[in-house]
Formats: sequence, structure tokens, C-alpha cells
Amino acid sequence: MPGNSFGQILRLTTFGESHGPGIGGILEGCPAGLPLDVRDLQAELDLRKASNHAASTSRREPDKVEILSGVTAGKTSGTPIAFYIENQVHNSDDYAHLAGKFRPGHADFTYFKKYSGNNDWAGGGRASGRETAIRVAAGAIAKKLLLTQGISLAAACIEFGGIAIPEAEINLANAIERPWFAASDAIIPLWEERLEEALKNQDTLGGIVQVSAYAVPPGLGEPVFDRLDARLAYALMSIGAVKGVEIGSGFQSARMTGSQNNDQILPKNATEDLSQAPKDLAKSLQVDFASNHAGGILGGISSGQEIVVKAAIKPIASIPRLQNTVDLYGKATSIKVAGRHDRSAIPRVVPVCASMVALTLADFLLLQQRMNIL
Amino acid sequence: MPGNSFGQILRLTTFGESHGPGIGGILEGCPAGLPLDVRDLQAELDLRKASNHAASTSRREPDKVEILSGVTAGKTSGTPIAFYIENQVHNSDDYAHLAGKFRPGHADFTYFKKYSGNNDWAGGGRASGRETAIRVAAGAIAKKLLLTQGISLAAACIEFGGIAIPEAEINLANAIERPWFAASDAIIPLWEERLEEALKNQDTLGGIVQVSAYAVPPGLGEPVFDRLDARLAYALMSIGAVKGVEIGSGFQSARMTGSQNNDQILPKNATEDLSQAPKDLAKSLQVDFASNHAGGILGGISSGQEIVVKAAIKPIASIPRLQNTVDLYGKATSIKVAGRHDRSAIPRVVPVCASMVALTLADFLLLQQRMNIL
Amino acid sequence: MPGNSFGQILRLTTFGESHGPGIGGILEGCPAGLPLDVRDLQAELDLRKASNHAASTSRREPDKVEILSGVTAGKTSGTPIAFYIENQVHNSDDYAHLAGKFRPGHADFTYFKKYSGNNDWAGGGRASGRETAIRVAAGAIAKKLLLTQGISLAAACIEFGGIAIPEAEINLANAIERPWFAASDAIIPLWEERLEEALKNQDTLGGIVQVSAYAVPPGLGEPVFDRLDARLAYALMSIGAVKGVEIGSGFQSARMTGSQNNDQILPKNATEDLSQAPKDLAKSLQVDFASNHAGGILGGISSGQEIVVKAAIKPIASIPRLQNTVDLYGKATSIKVAGRHDRSAIPRVVPVCASMVALTLADFLLLQQRMNIL
Amino acid sequence: MPGNSFGQILRLTTFGESHGPGIGGILEGCPAGLPLDVRDLQAELDLRKASNHAASTSRREPDKVEILSGVTAGKTSGTPIAFYIENQVHNSDDYAHLAGKFRPGHADFTYFKKYSGNNDWAGGGRASGRETAIRVAAGAIAKKLLLTQGISLAAACIEFGGIAIPEAEINLANAIERPWFAASDAIIPLWEERLEEALKNQDTLGGIVQVSAYAVPPGLGEPVFDRLDARLAYALMSIGAVKGVEIGSGFQSARMTGSQNNDQILPKNATEDLSQAPKDLAKSLQVDFASNHAGGILGGISSGQEIVVKAAIKPIASIPRLQNTVDLYGKATSIKVAGRHDRSAIPRVVPVCASMVALTLADFLLLQQRMNIL
Repeated sequence: MPGNSFGQILRLTTFGESHGPGIGGILEGCPAGLPLDVRDLQAELDLRKASNHAASTSRREPDKVEILSGVTAGKTSGTPIAFYIENQVHNSDDYAHLAGKFRPGHADFTYFKKYSGNNDWAGGGRASGRETAIRVAAGAIAKKLLLTQGISLAAACIEFGGIAIPEAEINLANAIERPWFAASDAIIPLWEERLEEALKNQDTLGGIVQVSAYAVPPGLGEPVFDRLDARLAYALMSIGAVKGVEIGSGFQSARMTGSQNNDQILPKNATEDLSQAPKDLAKSLQVDFASNHAGGILGGISSGQEIVVKAAIKPIASIPRLQNTVDLYGKATSIKVAGRHDRSAIPRVVPVCASMVALTLADFLLLQQRMNIL
Repeated sequence: MPGNSFGQILRLTTFGESHGPGIGGILEGCPAGLPLDVRDLQAELDLRKASNHAASTSRREPDKVEILSGVTAGKTSGTPIAFYIENQVHNSDDYAHLAGKFRPGHADFTYFKKYSGNNDWAGGGRASGRETAIRVAAGAIAKKLLLTQGISLAAACIEFGGIAIPEAEINLANAIERPWFAASDAIIPLWEERLEEALKNQDTLGGIVQVSAYAVPPGLGEPVFDRLDARLAYALMSIGAVKGVEIGSGFQSARMTGSQNNDQILPKNATEDLSQAPKDLAKSLQVDFASNHAGGILGGISSGQEIVVKAAIKPIASIPRLQNTVDLYGKATSIKVAGRHDRSAIPRVVPVCASMVALTLADFLLLQQRMNIL
Repeated sequence: MPGNSFGQILRLTTFGESHGPGIGGILEGCPAGLPLDVRDLQAELDLRKASNHAASTSRREPDKVEILSGVTAGKTSGTPIAFYIENQVHNSDDYAHLAGKFRPGHADFTYFKKYSGNNDWAGGGRASGRETAIRVAAGAIAKKLLLTQGISLAAACIEFGGIAIPEAEINLANAIERPWFAASDAIIPLWEERLEEALKNQDTLGGIVQVSAYAVPPGLGEPVFDRLDARLAYALMSIGAVKGVEIGSGFQSARMTGSQNNDQILPKNATEDLSQAPKDLAKSLQVDFASNHAGGILGGISSGQEIVVKAAIKPIASIPRLQNTVDLYGKATSIKVAGRHDRSAIPRVVPVCASMVALTLADFLLLQQRMNIL
Repeated sequence: MPGNSFGQILRLTTFGESHGPGIGGILEGCPAGLPLDVRDLQAELDLRKASNHAASTSRREPDKVEILSGVTAGKTSGTPIAFYIENQVHNSDDYAHLAGKFRPGHADFTYFKKYSGNNDWAGGGRASGRETAIRVAAGAIAKKLLLTQGISLAAACIEFGGIAIPEAEINLANAIERPWFAASDAIIPLWEERLEEALKNQDTLGGIVQVSAYAVPPGLGEPVFDRLDARLAYALMSIGAVKGVEIGSGFQSARMTGSQNNDQILPKNATEDLSQAPKDLAKSLQVDFASNHAGGILGGISSGQEIVVKAAIKPIASIPRLQNTVDLYGKATSIKVAGRHDRSAIPRVVPVCASMVALTLADFLLLQQRMNIL
């Protein structure tokens, strides 16, 4: 309710400020018996590390995670899995020159208003992107749970600084091993050039991230409000840098006609036995689709096709240029946000996006088990 | 949890199938003392009526709403407000020729899988867009509640069939009175032509809807997961026809640099009294912004600027053309979805979008009241 | 959140005032494929009918229920099941002589304060026991769902007007067919005498209800806060007439020693195969217990024993005697609550208690299915 | 949803096992600006410490709490308040002799079944009473929040080992300073004697705890399911040792007549101005009551009277006597639960009960703020 939780059956609740003692989370609802080691979480966190990425010149947190509960003898015990990352680098002095000035594009002003001046200013406090580390740690568990059912995810950057990978060249496989988590090898030199230019201009860049999920069984998602696409949009838009979300062909669908946009249905395993009960038909039926404009979701429910979601990532708001702003007395002033800041949320935001998709799918997967009772 | 509710303090729960006895909803959490009449709901419902719109050749439901509880002597009593719309036109025979065939672009297949063959096929059952009438009825109450705080909404169609209104010409004022709920008078002939062409091709069209909210106080939204933008994305993407959501400059932000995208902050009511407590400063401080790429939301919290959200509406999936599909035995067949179907969810989806935004804002407005205790 | 919902996966949301158009509810989350007919609901509602009971001289509502959604071809379709009961007898004039006076023991005063004077006074409005009819309708569905898993319930009155059935004589079987839903035949004359006396004194009576659940599998309930016993206490105490709840030996446990209160564990199906994995052991293991002071719940989780809960029912607050009170201007006055009122919530509250237990168990049963994924 | 959270607007989520690295919690939703220091939490935790109590011979944990987030410059910042207690004494060897045997009266068997053999056995794991420390830490914050509104709590033991304090002698004031948190000085020698006897018999004892809340404003609680009494019953029954809960006269009410049980209403501040709007009347009206059988709650809503709740505490299940049980292969065996165990949950459970009441009241207090918008 107060906004720090995500998910219903598999629920993550997080805490922590950028410059407080640390950040952490509790993942509830994970079934007992899932093999889990702290290294599973650490491996995903390492993908998000600043030191691995060209556009990331920021604070070099080791992000070493500890598991505090919920795992016994190498397996989840069914009780809440708590994990914690101590903040190692939190020299609040870095922010001394900013004190009392609202950084444009940041939450300083809105938090100041919302929390009646009691917000933690240092490094953005709770509004800092630092909290996303906890999403990634939790996402690692969700991914393991999905994998037990054969469901896997891939995530990649498909556009950076306005330079999109042509649709035909998008290849999510192995993106995790490419610089920028790029969905193409060929694009990388162009992106590097674009970053170079931005650095020269003391500016920052955004881009677009795609997450795909494979082998998601048909039937995930709930009708009306808690559609799978609605929850995915919620999941991704809850990431600070995200300003837009698309499912499948997304905004492009709005420009197509119905005959273009509909994914026609093709036979896959027709049965000759017309006497079967609907329940048995429903269980065994498989189909193919002629296209996937829907992004694997029909009527808010997974169709068995690849789930495709895209998120628009805005450029980092911290720029080392002079900008107009006001101080907390409302007086005009200017600000230059120097310090250890990334030049783009790309590519570090990529595993964050994947984690949010994983948490969403795993939650619906668990909820759907209730149907098996009949 | 099972997906038929929206909101936390102000919570709407809906029910009903397209061809069942009727559809209805319960709105809980509305404070007592709000003047409310069934005509408030009916007026909004009438905006969604098929008969008012060129692209809407569909089933002509009167959509006459009744209030069943929660209103006493012309005011809300604080208890759940239930409302009900009887289905008048639900000749299931219209669908006889479709029986057992999955309509492409519809939820027939996914509901069949999800509900083990027990889904209500007639007219899409629960998956039909018919349920959106209940969102509009509830939205009428949310809008009245927002108005008591000076908050108003406008919604309009800004693109139809691939023809966008140039950004400089977008004018939401009075859109409610224009055909198509269009955000421009000049565009209408072009859209009519586009519709004509689609009709000739037995095809359907989509478009883009914008909703703006005015005078939203700073401070609405919660940190991390329940950001205002995340909940708005959830709200809009839960509408069946929506395939993409943007906040402010949205996907365009991903192509801007930080210096272009940041909304610089300008003074409005600076104080000379530097001795004020942060609490008092936070209360009185007002600012202006040089632009509004953020769409009125910073760090997931409303900034006091106009809230701007856009939704991509896919073309209606029901087309009177032959399409490939399979039947419930998995056998290849073809289908032509004739009948009383709209040619576009535009413009009927416009008040639905506005309602979802209103419900979201009103929910956060109520939640934010808790802060006043200290 | 605003209090009109119960349950998490299987969730009931209700609406309606005593003297409004009607009362109703939405039950979400019921798996698809459960055979269901409106007569299933009506049969349970008939048990609660005033006309069947000696202590019930009240308003004779037919309580005819309709199903508005969620059932197709005789089975649940997986979507929300809405049901509605029109109020037939709601002559608000009956209450004219009470207008503006707060009835002692009723919610008139607290609703007046809570809802800033906007509450619906007639017949107690939302606070009337009339809303419990909807719990019973929903409980009928929960019971059917439980029965598919072999779980059954029994409920009975075990004490009335201070006259308890001796523990050794309590027999829940067939209580449904006895007057008062009594757990003994022998007690009935004593209770009739007690009622006679109360009638003579223009007074009302209370009692104690027991609900037992049989064949509940071990493992239902969640750790720490959402223990099965905690949720059962919540469920029962949410009934207006209930002022106390016990699990198993309840308050008597507080007077026992540990050696008396512990239920020792006895073998039932020991295995010789010591090589089995814990998972398989956990699945197959069965035990017996030497006693059942715990009421079938250990550590908040069902143990497989009979679940035993008891609820203390206060005497009806509406008495045809002069009582002191104040009017809405705060002035001293007196009141005699005449009219069509029961002399005891016993026995009509018995099926209400059973319904709340059924809803609670069914909810946990569905939640526990998530564990089967691993 | 998965059971580790309590509250809706003010929500506590906890984690941790008895013998894991530590235990902790996240309290979300606390308004910004509440003065808070780690010593506020520590002071309440010290009341629960084993070393302070005669019946507590158990594990001597220092229970030193740390705050990890949510407090800035001595005040709550509005973001989640996380706190953590490292487990210092967790020698799992103490339990080696118990391995694989289900302790009667404990959750060993039910957790084994629920979590498919993956539960953490050591010291009961998540089912240990150790988790209640986190409730007390969170309760400290809730109490501070309540105090800002003038609401205070008192809690005491009113019965121990079957020896009740006569009702006329119950005095909650200063109970916190008496041994056993007793509600009377005179009872203490009798209780000491009773404990002596139990120790001699290698047995354990239970008792009854009362919590009262003062100056609770009328209007807290929600209708139908989330009544204040229902949530209090839920809150208290969620404590492992609690087997029964009463509100006001509780089970005694079931034996009274309506004329005895009704609390008649007396004038306090009558107005002569009959022209006032209901809203203003509702705001200013105050009343007195001739008695308080209702325990300060009418129709599920606080009446302004003292809130009175009682909880039945079962005797500790760990007894150093031989008891029958089975091992995880289902074979009959016997067990003697030696080690560092309390002889009664009394008095350590007293601050736990108070904390749960405080969390419940504070949650409803925040929710009720929504009404102020109109």
C-alpha cells in the first residue's frame, strides 16, 4: 500500500536510502525447495555494476549482497528471503555543494513537498536509482523459479542516444555478453561515437530496452485490471528512468489496421477426438501464430508466444552543466551536478528491467496454480 | 488479488460478462459527504455510448446505470457505492457462427486455456470491452472527488489511423464536444477520410489518446514501486485496447539528451524569511518549470505541473474479413467476424482512459491525507 | 483496504444497506469449473431465514438471491461471481420514532461520528446484520469448493442464554436439523424456557457458536501474521454480534499447564525406508494426536486434525425497553427499540459463522497450491 | 499476501529465523516528521527481555536493534523504516538431540508438511517466538505516532496459571513497573507460588493479558470486514501463544441479557443550536456511556471509550518432561525439550500484545485521515 512492495503472491518489499547504512529487501511467497545460493543473487548484481560499462562513470559500489533469512541447506525454506547490501561509498560531502537546491529532473522538489521537508537529501535518498540493486537481487530468485518451469528471459538495449538497431537485426541472444547489453554487434561503434559526443557536450543519453520471455505458458495474467500487460507496464514504469512502455508492436499498433495487427492463428496439434471434455481440450491444445504484434498477450493473458515488452529510458538527469533551479526558499539559483554519475542508465538498467519482468511473471505463475485445484 | 479490483484506498471492483445479465461495480473508500446523483454517472456513460460516434457502429446499449448502495440523501455515506447496468442487447445468437473458433486478436484462445475451457464465449464474456462502462461510471465519482480539490481532467484523441495532430495544434480544451473527442478541429476531415477508406477495406483503425490532469498538488504518488507514473501506466494498460503508455515526452525522451529533457526550475514565490522550519517551507513553496518533458511527475511523485499521459490504442480486432484461425480441436479454419462492431475503439475509449486516470489520482490523493496527521 | 473485502485469493467484496435497494457481493478468485447453481446459494440462505427460528421474530425477508455473473453452463467460469438480493421489506417508517436518537449497543453513534453525519440511519444502514446474508451466499460457494477436496464443515450452537451444553454431550452432527442449530437434543427444552423468560422480561440473549472443519489437510495458513487461527479470529470477529473468539481449548488453555495442553503426537503410517528425500517424507507422513487442545492448528498452520473455533455471541442490542441515550444534539432522551427484531442472533448467526470459516479455509487452500509448483 | 505483513497503510513486514543470522522488519507508511531514535525501539525491546522476568529462564539475547533506513536528522523521512536485530545466541547444537522429532505443541510437524520438508528446524525457525521482537520494535514506532494524537496504551497480565486478579482490583496503571507486568500488587505472591509449583513439576503456565487504549477518537475501524475489533482479534491471534481473544466483556457478554450488556448513552456536551449541519454536529458531539461492556467498539468502530481487549496465552509448549511423539519417518519416539526455555510466555508477551494493538490503531488512524478531505 505505501508503495514499497511489488507483487501479490511473490512479493518484494524494499527499503533503503542512497546514503544510509544500506539497502535491502524481503521477498515473500517463494515456494519452499528452490535451490538458492547467495551467488545466484551476486551474479545478477554484478551485471548491474558500474565498473562493467563504458557509460557508467559513477560511484563504484561493490554491491556485495548477504542473505539474512529464508534459505536453509541450500534451498528456500518457504519463509521470507531477506537480503541486504551495505552502502560502502556514501560520502555525503559529494552533495554538500547541492544542499538546498533542487536538481532539475530529479525528485528533490517532489520529495521535499511530499514529505514536508523531512526527506533525506543525500544522493536523492530513497529516490536514487540505487534501490534498483534490490530489484535485481530479487529478480535473480524469480528467474530461478521461472527456470524450474522452463521459462527464460532475455533483455537487451535496442536503441541508444536516438540510434536504433534496425528491427531485422535485433538479436537478444547473448546480449548479456555484448557491451551495452546491445541486441546487435554492428551497432556498437555507432553508440560509442554517440556517447563520445555526449561526453564532449557534458550531456547524457537515453535509449530503449527490450525484454523478452520465452516458453511462458498460456494462461498467465488476470482479467480486467490485473492483466499481464498492465502489470508489466506497472513493473517497468516503476523504474525511475522509464518514461514509456510498449507491449508487442506497442505504439506502432496504433498506426496499423486491424488486418495488419491481428496475429492469425495456425494449427499445431489438432485432435480428431471430438468427444473430449473442454477441460481436456484446453489442456492439450496448442496453436501457432502467424505473427506476434500482440507481444504474447491476448486479452491480458499470456498466449504462449514470446512475451515482448519495451521500455523508454530517459537520459540521466544529473548533468555537469549549469542549469536553472531554485533553492528551498524558492530563490532562483543555478546548479551544476558534478560527481560520480553515469552518462546513461543504459546499460545498467537492462538487468533491472529484466528483473521486473521476471518478478511479474513469477507472481502470475504462482497465482495461476490455484486453478489446478479443480 | 484476482485482478478485478483497481486502487487501494479508493478501490473499484467490477464484475460481469458481455452477454450475462449485466455488469456492475463496487467503489469502496470514497469519503462520506460527496454530493452524488445517478445522473453524474449517467452523463459520463453517455459520452461512451456507441450512438454518438461515427466509428461506432456497434451494439446500441442504453447503458442505463442504477446506484444500489452508498448514497443517502444525495451524498455519499462512506460505505461502498455499488452500481449496476443491465445488459439489454445480448443476443448470443450473433455469435453462433463463431462458436468454437478462436477470433484472432481476441482473448478467446487465452481464456480457453486459462479457465480450462470453462470461459463464457459469448461476445468475449469477461474479456469484452463492455466492462469498461463500469470504469467510466466509477470514474465519474473519482472526478467529482477530484473537483472538490480543484483538480480537473481533459482527455482527447490526438492521433487516429496514423494521422497525428501536429503537436503545436493539440488543444484538449472542449475536445469533449468535438467529433472523435479530437484535440483539434482541423484534423477532423482527414480522420473522416481515413475512416471511410478503412470501411471500404473492411478494416479497423487505432490511434492515440492523451489525458491531462490540471492542478494536481505536488506530492501524489509513492516511492519506488507505487510511483504515480507506474500506477498510471498500470491503469491505462489495463484497458484492453491499449498497447503502449507514455508519460510526458515518453519515448521521445529516450531520444533527447539530459540537457534537452530536464525541465529547469524557475522561481515563483521566494521567501525572504530564512528562519522557517522545513515543514513550513515545504508547505508554502511554489515553483515554475521551463518545460514539461516529465509530464508532471518527478521521481514518481506529482510536481504540480500538468500531468500528461498518452495511450496507444490498437485497431479493433473484430474485422469483417476472412482470417485464419483454429477451432477448439486445434483444426485449421477461417473466420469472418461480422456483427455489430466498432471500427475503432477511438473515440469511445477516451472517457475510459480519463476515468482510469481519475481513479488513480483520487486514490493517491486520499492516501496522501495520512501525511496531514503530523 | 476500505474494509468491505475479505480474503486474498478468494476474495469477497460486499455492498448494501439494510433499507437501500438491496445487498450484494462479488466473489473473486474462484477457480473455473466448479459446478454451481443459484440453488446452492439459496439453500444456505434459507438456513439463515428468520421464519425458521423461534428466537427470530424479525423482518421476514425472502432473501431471494440472483447470480449476475461468473457462472456459465452450470459451472464457474473463473471470473467474478456477483450475486444480489433485493431488499423487499424496508419500510423506513418503522424507524421514524427513533430518528436522531442513538440506539445503545448499536453503531448509530459511531457511524455518525465516522461519516460526519452522512451515514444512512435507516435500520442501521450498512451496520445492520442484514449484510451477513451476503457472507452466507459466498460461503455456499466456498463450501462447495472445499468439498471438492473432501473438506467439510459443521456448525452449531453450544451455549444459549448462559446455559451451556456439557462438553461431553456436544454433538455437531445433524445440528443443522435441530432447533437452534443446537449441538444436543437434550438441551433444547432448557433453552426454550430461557427464551420464554427473556421474552417475558422484554430482553434478549446471546450464546456461543462452535464451527468445526474436517479433513483439512496439514499445511494451510501462513507464518507469523496470516496464521490460520489469526485469520479465523479476524473472520469471526468481523461478524457484528461476535465479541470473543477461541481456537481449540482457547481461554481454557490459559489455565492449563504445558503438559496438559500439549497434544502428544502418535504414529500412524511410519516408513521403514530411511533413504527417502524430505520432500517425499513430508508428502506421505501422517500422524495422530492424543488430544486436540490446539484446535487443529499448530504454529498457525493446520495440522490435519479437526479445526475447532468458538465465537461468543452478544445479546441483540435492540430491546423493547426504555433505555437512556442522547439525540444528535447531545441531549439526554430515552428510547424503546420496538419493531421486528430477533430476540437472539442465535441461531441465525450459526450459518454466518460457518460461512466465514469456509471462506477462510478456501482462501488458504488456494494459496497453498503455489507450493505445488516445485 | 504470503503472511509476513501486518497493516494496510502502516504496514509491517518481517523476516528472520530463530537461528539464522538475524531478524528484522520494514515498517512502511509512517508519516514523515515523527521524531524517532533507535533508543525508542530499544526501550520497548528491553521490556521483552528474558533477563527481566522470573518466568523467563531462556536464551539471553541482547536484542540490540539497529535502524537501517527511513530516519533522517532524528525524524522519520516518510520512507520505509527498516530495523534489524542480529542473532547473537544461536547455538543450533542445543537442538541436536531433537533433530527429526516433532515437538508436541510446536510447529515442527505443520511446517514440515507445509514446506515439503524444507523448513528450518533449528529452534523452530520462523515459527519461534523470537520473531515477536520485531513486532515490539515496530510497535514502539506506532506508539509514538499514536502519542502525537494523545492516544496512549496500557497492557498488563490479569491472570496467571489460572489465578485471576479479581476484576475490581485490576489496575493497569504502572503495570509496566510491576513484576509480571501484573495489574495488581497483591496478586504477585500468589503467582510466584504458582510458578514455583510449576517449576517443581517441570511444567509451564499460561495466563491472560489485557491491553487498553485511551483517548482513541471515535470513528476508527471500517465497516463489515475490517472492523476495529476484527483487526484487533487478527492482530492478537497472530501471536503464537494466543488461543483466544475477547473485546470488552467478551465471552461474558454471551451470558448477559441485552439490557445488561447494552452500554446506555449519557449526555456530555448538548447543543442548543438545532440549525447546525449534520457535519458540524458530528464533529462537536461528545457523549458518555454508563458502562463499557462493548470495550470501546460499536459496530466495529471506536466509540471514544477505552478500548479493552484480552488475549488468552497458552502455556509454553517446551517442557522438560518426556512426551510422546514421532520422528520424521513417522516412528513413535519420545522427546524431552530441555534447554533455555521460558516457563511462561507471561510476562514477555505483554509488550508484544501492546505492540499489536498499537500497530492496529495507528493503521486505522491513518486510514481515517482520508475522510478529512471533504
